[in-house]
Amino acid sequence: MIVLGIDPGSQATGFSVLHKEKGRFKLIEAGIIRTNSKNSIPKRLCKIHKELQEVIDKHKPTTGAIEAIFAGKSAESALRLGQARGVALLVMAQNDLDVTPYNPMTVKKSVGGHGKAGKKEMIRIVSRLLGLEKDLPSDAADASAIAITHFMHASFQRKLRKL
Amino acid sequence: MIVLGIDPGSQATGFSVLHKEKGRFKLIEAGIIRTNSKNSIPKRLCKIHKELQEVIDKHKPTTGAIEAIFAGKSAESALRLGQARGVALLVMAQNDLDVTPYNPMTVKKSVGGHGKAGKKEMIRIVSRLLGLEKDLPSDAADASAIAITHFMHASFQRKLRKL
Repeated sequence: MIVLGIDPGSQATGFSVLHKEKGRFKLIEAGIIRTNSKNSIPKRLCKIHKELQEVIDKHKPTTGAIEAIFAGKSAESALRLGQARGVALLVMAQNDLDVTPYNPMTVKKSVGGHGKAGKKEMIRIVSRLLGLEKDLPSDAADASAIAITHFMHASFQRKLRKL
Repeated sequence: MIVLGIDPGSQATGFSVLHKEKGRFKLIEAGIIRTNSKNSIPKRLCKIHKELQEVIDKHKPTTGAIEAIFAGKSAESALRLGQARGVALLVMAQNDLDVTPYNPMTVKKSVGGHGKAGKKEMIRIVSRLLGLEKDLPSDAADASAIAITHFMHASFQRKLRKL
């Protein structure tokens, strides 16, 4: 299983491609797709789509995970986020990847062990879980946290099926 | 000029392809892309993208128009609308179409002559402007109204440039 985690945003879309080797998480690639706010929204969405397609072509993930709909925003910022999220969901579906959504609290509890970890603590935990010496940049860490959550839940589901 | 107007939505995306012939609007094709609510959101976005691409391949529009961000919604429905809107903006940008947004009030004033036209009245006006004997279905009429608005504003811009 190779998981593609995506944390979409119109300005910065984090992505992370992970697998597991000998019981340990191994980061294949994580990064941030940044768009220029001087460009039109359609052009920026085009960049997000193109670069996510390149990540998929390069690493051939077998499944996808994304942050669930998070409603604590204004309608305007939700619409803007929705546009980037729509493009991320589209590119995964175009490549026949299943996409599982995880809400932020599930991600925090799965990765941080409790729901109260702050942003910096989450970045540190994620980076150590991946065996990195340096911390990942914020959006790449968020995408990695989503991918790690998917690994944890998928293996739990496998265990459940065996029972 | 061949205009592609889009009225995006996760359940129903209206589209309309128009041009002008001897000073009159001529409808090339208008329709509604409906998605099955039993399918996953990524699959539904995939269908919207694929069918809009087919419309573009078939009719080769030269420019695009879309409803502007409309904020009178809950964050959740704005996010859902944003996902469909993002896919519509993406497919237009992927085909090198410029996209001009028009807010609902501009559309009503441009097409209906005033801002107070009701939904049914707008459908009737749009259908008559296009020389149709029968009324268009609602979402196709909305997309057509956006395309007509773009024609009106584009010819106004051309006149301004000549002054």
